[in-house]
Amino acid sequence: MAEITLTFPDGAKKSFEEGVKPIEVAESIAKSLAKKSVSAKLNGSYVGMQDAMTESGDFSLITKGEDEALQILRHSAAHLLAQAMRRLPKFANVHFGVGPAIENGFYYDTDNGAGNQVSVEDFAEIEAMMKKIVKEDLPILSHEISRDEALETFKDDPYKIELINDLPEGEKITVAVQGEHVELDRGGLVPSTGWIKHFKLVSVAGSYWRGDSSKNVMQRVYGTAFWDAKDLEEDLQRRAEAKERDHRNIGRDLDLFFTSQKVGSGLPVWLPNGATIRRQVERYIVDKELANDYLHVYTPVLSNLNLYKTSGHWDHYREDMFPPMDMGDGEFLELRPMNCPSHISVYQHKPRSYRDLPLRIAELGMMHRYEKSGALTGLSRVREMTLNDGHTFVAPDQLEEEFKSILKMTMDVYKDFDITDYRFRLSYRDPENTEKYFDDDEMWEKSQAQLKRAMDDMGLDYFEAPGEAAFYGPKLDIQTKTALGGEETLSTIQLDFLLPERFDLTYVGEDGQDNHRPVMLHRGIVGTMERFTAYLIEIYKGAFPTWLAPLQVQIIPVNAEAHGSYAKKIQKDLADAGLRAHIDNRSAKMGYLIRDAQTKKVPYTLVLGDSEQADGTVTVRRYGQQETEAMPAADFKQLVLADVARYSRPEEK
Amino acid sequence: MAEITLTFPDGAKKSFEEGVKPIEVAESIAKSLAKKSVSAKLNGSYVGMQDAMTESGDFSLITKGEDEALQILRHSAAHLLAQAMRRLPKFANVHFGVGPAIENGFYYDTDNGAGNQVSVEDFAEIEAMMKKIVKEDLPILSHEISRDEALETFKDDPYKIELINDLPEGEKITVAVQGEHVELDRGGLVPSTGWIKHFKLVSVAGSYWRGDSSKNVMQRVYGTAFWDAKDLEEDLQRRAEAKERDHRNIGRDLDLFFTSQKVGSGLPVWLPNGATIRRQVERYIVDKELANDYLHVYTPVLSNLNLYKTSGHWDHYREDMFPPMDMGDGEFLELRPMNCPSHISVYQHKPRSYRDLPLRIAELGMMHRYEKSGALTGLSRVREMTLNDGHTFVAPDQLEEEFKSILKMTMDVYKDFDITDYRFRLSYRDPENTEKYFDDDEMWEKSQAQLKRAMDDMGLDYFEAPGEAAFYGPKLDIQTKTALGGEETLSTIQLDFLLPERFDLTYVGEDGQDNHRPVMLHRGIVGTMERFTAYLIEIYKGAFPTWLAPLQVQIIPVNAEAHGSYAKKIQKDLADAGLRAHIDNRSAKMGYLIRDAQTKKVPYTLVLGDSEQADGTVTVRRYGQQETEAMPAADFKQLVLADVARYSRPEEK
Repeated sequence: MAEITLTFPDGAKKSFEEGVKPIEVAESIAKSLAKKSVSAKLNGSYVGMQDAMTESGDFSLITKGEDEALQILRHSAAHLLAQAMRRLPKFANVHFGVGPAIENGFYYDTDNGAGNQVSVEDFAEIEAMMKKIVKEDLPILSHEISRDEALETFKDDPYKIELINDLPEGEKITVAVQGEHVELDRGGLVPSTGWIKHFKLVSVAGSYWRGDSSKNVMQRVYGTAFWDAKDLEEDLQRRAEAKERDHRNIGRDLDLFFTSQKVGSGLPVWLPNGATIRRQVERYIVDKELANDYLHVYTPVLSNLNLYKTSGHWDHYREDMFPPMDMGDGEFLELRPMNCPSHISVYQHKPRSYRDLPLRIAELGMMHRYEKSGALTGLSRVREMTLNDGHTFVAPDQLEEEFKSILKMTMDVYKDFDITDYRFRLSYRDPENTEKYFDDDEMWEKSQAQLKRAMDDMGLDYFEAPGEAAFYGPKLDIQTKTALGGEETLSTIQLDFLLPERFDLTYVGEDGQDNHRPVMLHRGIVGTMERFTAYLIEIYKGAFPTWLAPLQVQIIPVNAEAHGSYAKKIQKDLADAGLRAHIDNRSAKMGYLIRDAQTKKVPYTLVLGDSEQADGTVTVRRYGQQETEAMPAADFKQLVLADVARYSRPEEK
Repeated sequence: MAEITLTFPDGAKKSFEEGVKPIEVAESIAKSLAKKSVSAKLNGSYVGMQDAMTESGDFSLITKGEDEALQILRHSAAHLLAQAMRRLPKFANVHFGVGPAIENGFYYDTDNGAGNQVSVEDFAEIEAMMKKIVKEDLPILSHEISRDEALETFKDDPYKIELINDLPEGEKITVAVQGEHVELDRGGLVPSTGWIKHFKLVSVAGSYWRGDSSKNVMQRVYGTAFWDAKDLEEDLQRRAEAKERDHRNIGRDLDLFFTSQKVGSGLPVWLPNGATIRRQVERYIVDKELANDYLHVYTPVLSNLNLYKTSGHWDHYREDMFPPMDMGDGEFLELRPMNCPSHISVYQHKPRSYRDLPLRIAELGMMHRYEKSGALTGLSRVREMTLNDGHTFVAPDQLEEEFKSILKMTMDVYKDFDITDYRFRLSYRDPENTEKYFDDDEMWEKSQAQLKRAMDDMGLDYFEAPGEAAFYGPKLDIQTKTALGGEETLSTIQLDFLLPERFDLTYVGEDGQDNHRPVMLHRGIVGTMERFTAYLIEIYKGAFPTWLAPLQVQIIPVNAEAHGSYAKKIQKDLADAGLRAHIDNRSAKMGYLIRDAQTKKVPYTLVLGDSEQADGTVTVRRYGQQETEAMPAADFKQLVLADVARYSRPEEK
């Protein structure tokens, strides 16, 4: 019988009979290895543990504990979901799209036909059937079939037929079989259904077939799976908390904003409560920047398209840009995708000298992104956004100092918002793909070293990420955790050597020559108002610190008639001090009104009755506390003003 | 000989020989009348004083002192300008477009060929030739000619040929002749060139032939003319002052803003100085509105086109709107032309009850107007603008009270900006053309009466303007003077019964029924940031009151080394108090630096030398004053803070 030779990751080679299965190879090494091997790879392609191998080559086993093994488990769980749905009478005629593993679990796109939608109410029944199939411990086997066989096998599955027809001629087609269930599949599956023990379906959402908005809307069923019950439990808890923190839910409950297709997809409307938060953030950051010698400007949202041709956005970023508008006289106007060219126009408005540098231009700059509707989410993924944008123009030898001073200001701002869970990422160009970047090796080496040195000088920890740089230069990204446990760039400081070239920016040096080239620093401290507010909602869980809270003081008179004018006096006094206080005059039980103020997460609730009125005091209940405290009205005002002045910094003990 | 019968304006009829001239008719009444008669009208058409009349009909004389007479003088002056240019060798080959009288004078569109532009330097020579022709006192006579004769007469004048060819077949063609000069003209001219004594050419600007940007650019020469030397003199003075106040000139001199086609026509860039003024105005008006129970929101600049189909903007206002953008999935997004539909979406977001009313929604709402490039001017006529917009939704019986409270707030704001030169206009529908308006006679009668009653109640003077109402309801406009002496609407309060219908807005009444219809009030207090800032620049002539001034305190140390740290201490102390203070460290003569601060119209200039440093004082010079005053630094800070707190209100004596 013929032999094949397998080369192991450590370089060792070993011969086996043709037709040997990965499970047999594993057992030949160690029983324990066989037990924890999930799948195998031969020459870069998956081979199931029970599949016969007929060629020599590079071989590896994938074992529990590796990231890839978890992907394989979840991929297998998607198949399990599909098999279970097909077995249920309600979903016997379901058509499936694709069902991959994703970052947090897996999904399967399903088309259940009109009037037969799958909903979370169906999950228990589907999960019960999935568990039954797990008990059956069906072996999962893969094999190659011809295109004709494939078309015959999936003849009742229109989406699969489309996928098959889209495969290039000559492409190998494989299926995975578990019991009665057949999947069009490239492998990477556990040996049998019995391996999939800890899973859960979590949600269902509409999604276009192949992400194409001109195609059918399918239902995407999301689930997750883990090797251990404990891991699954923890993940489900995280998800529950994420849901509780989800800015869309809190945004709805607290009347902060809404989105609707009637107004326009991806175009949130900030309701008065949300607008108050945004206004506070805007004024805070503008004042902070002014105090740090930034020059604030207003530049137009609509601009001559040529600006973006010069900048390179039109060449490199066009698919994210809105269509240009013809003004009928040779001018084309464009909704700007970025603010940099506008700030460059401010730089260029006058001849500049070394004495003007660093020149710091800042703006709350509105910009637009031509985003597909499927990708839009609440405030965090939108088509119109206002960026806390800034561009500093420096002489090359000022670069490091300016970088440090921007970073210092950023960290100061973080303290004011009590943002503590973040890490620094130095984003370099990909050394393997230098052709993707602005072509100047010396510049890259030098500027990446400058960034590193600045961080070291400041004694800050960071990690380095090759391949994460911008096209035009390296950058520092500040990475924060999202509610779902993912990571998001909140702030960024980017070095740019390219735009000064493209726009031919110059300044007069100490030598009197107007041929010196400045370097640009792009920076966003709190990012866009949209995404930052979404982030704040999630970190504060909607319980905004007093300076940001839409309503700061809720005043409840015990009796509207008896204590109404005292309540009014207190309210006016607070309002005159610039505080947001409101009297709740509704005729409802005191307990209800207090609970309602807590539900709305108002920082301070005052109850005013006979004794308060007689003594000129207020009875204060802070948000989230059961105890109340009586104090003179004037003291209360000072207390709240001090709270506001502290921003979100924790109270000192 | 045949007779004709003339019917005079008072109804009297009188017969004359056919061929009688208006001058003879005037003389037959009174010598003095003949002397002041400028031109005449027969059956609605002009007849020159020296032209023979051959038909009976309604006859009137136009005499000096009438508005129409001044138009005739200026129209004649345009012809005089053309004749004079043709006589000068430099402009012998000039081609003329049209040359009408306009509000402030007259113009003539000229095409002098490439390399032979007319400029203000040519004006003296042209005016000298005009005066010569005046002296010649050439009679100005009109007569009809055939189309063929006209084409022959103007064969070297391509623009006139185009005008002739565009005349409908059968249309009467007349020419006006003065000496060697022939004009294609419909009449309305003085009897002879000797009548045009007091005139002046004032400017020249590019303009498209027939206002069409696809056609030739011509040079439009502007002039003016009056009956009296004194009137001309006053007008020229007004123009000089207007130029001095012109927000474009001041905007350039004080680095407030700039416009350029590179960034985009009609899309001003607010430089740091201008942005500071705008930011102060924005914060002021937002805070004012919040204190007046407005709910501020942020709504998107881009919206679903359907909103404007529902509102009626798409049908009635489309030519001022930017082209809709196809999102590829059936959604069309539009740069909003108005904010009302956005605020309606806020109203509609929740069920509303009578308890919510009046509901006041406000925003600094950016909107866009698809304006032809020829019409764009500085900050006052732009394509992108941010409106201090507000919409109040009221129950019908709250309308009058709400109107009054808005007007009260508006007048309060005017006091803060020291705006005193304005008048109230009640804009009604045109009773002759009621079909142009929302069709509900009772509504119009009632609401116009309500407006009037509210104004009377408040004891305010106003004038009534039929035909100035919006399509959807009557309004109050507050009319202010512009630098050029024209009138402009600064604020407006508009009643709207139509949009609540179109969007089917309802609220639950005290009867528990959700079928009550609110009324909307559209209001703008300071209008758009762009136009309001242009207006402020003009009324303050760039010398902004302290609270708005880009730089409030210029600090000049006598010697940078000796007094630099004292200057820094003073600067920091002022900055910490929220004031905008800057140290001028340039090495230049003290006199120069002080003059420079005056040129930049900085409200306070401090000079700090030995004695100030020793005593902890500052020497203060106020803008526009020669005297200086020494005072303790702390007193100075209080002085400036009090000045800021007063807004633009005049200082009390």
